[in-house]
Amino acid sequence: MHSTVSCSTVEKKYQVRKLEISDKSKGFLELLQQLTVCDSVSDQEFQNRFEELKACGDDRVVGVIEDECSKKIIATGSVFIERKFIRSCGKAGHIEDVVVDSNARGLQLGKKIVEFLTDHARSVGCYKVVLYCGARNTGFYEKCGFEQQAINMGKYFV
Amino acid sequence: MHSTVSCSTVEKKYQVRKLEISDKSKGFLELLQQLTVCDSVSDQEFQNRFEELKACGDDRVVGVIEDECSKKIIATGSVFIERKFIRSCGKAGHIEDVVVDSNARGLQLGKKIVEFLTDHARSVGCYKVVLYCGARNTGFYEKCGFEQQAINMGKYFV
Repeated sequence: MHSTVSCSTVEKKYQVRKLEISDKSKGFLELLQQLTVCDSVSDQEFQNRFEELKACGDDRVVGVIEDECSKKIIATGSVFIERKFIRSCGKAGHIEDVVVDSNARGLQLGKKIVEFLTDHARSVGCYKVVLYCGARNTGFYEKCGFEQQAINMGKYFV
Repeated sequence: MHSTVSCSTVEKKYQVRKLEISDKSKGFLELLQQLTVCDSVSDQEFQNRFEELKACGDDRVVGVIEDECSKKIIATGSVFIERKFIRSCGKAGHIEDVVVDSNARGLQLGKKIVEFLTDHARSVGCYKVVLYCGARNTGFYEKCGFEQQAINMGKYFV
């Protein structure tokens, strides 16, 4: 039964959990740098932001996967819950800032993260979950059960 | 100076303000029905959601334009502020649920709403503001200073 044991080990090794404050020292911000601009911040700034998000409870979840061997964060993504008036005062989940370490591709970690965030949105009663991505990533999200719906537009202030 | 007086009157007549709880009786939900599914909710449900959003302070603003003559809400849109770890613990504004009454098109009310929400996002320190829209609305948002950036994808639970 080697394959079963192996699979079980992999499952355990790459479980998604919620962000912990100690993850700053485990390369969480360095991982986000692989996604976009993410300058280092002081421990105090990190703690303040961490506590602001924690105060939102289930409305704001950051998921991470830690490599048990290296003790480094190798995948992350976040979801926030938007409370609306439409859809009978419904809620929508917004997935943001999904990234997998470039050395950990091919392990389906991105899919695990997206499923974790999607399951969270469903569990708190969202009627939908949305995200936006570049054209090269639409195939990945289609495999995760998402469909192309609209065009994302933005305005940068800085 | 007739034109100045007229312009000033129009400006005053169609000012954007924050949602008030009494707007439920001024057709706020009926206006949202022009956008998407928005079944009626009880006064208590509306009040609960209103107070949840109010508790978020500047992180959650719903703007409305009231027609001073009819006392009806004829345009609305919302913005929520997402606190992130990227961009030195930066903030992003998300514009949602923008709609103008079908009988009040051509008065630039949509532009006023989007500018109000964009200004709010800028004033609280966001590095960007984003939204998603159908292909037929990209021209409108380009006039508001937005650029196409990515593809919006979604998964509906209900």
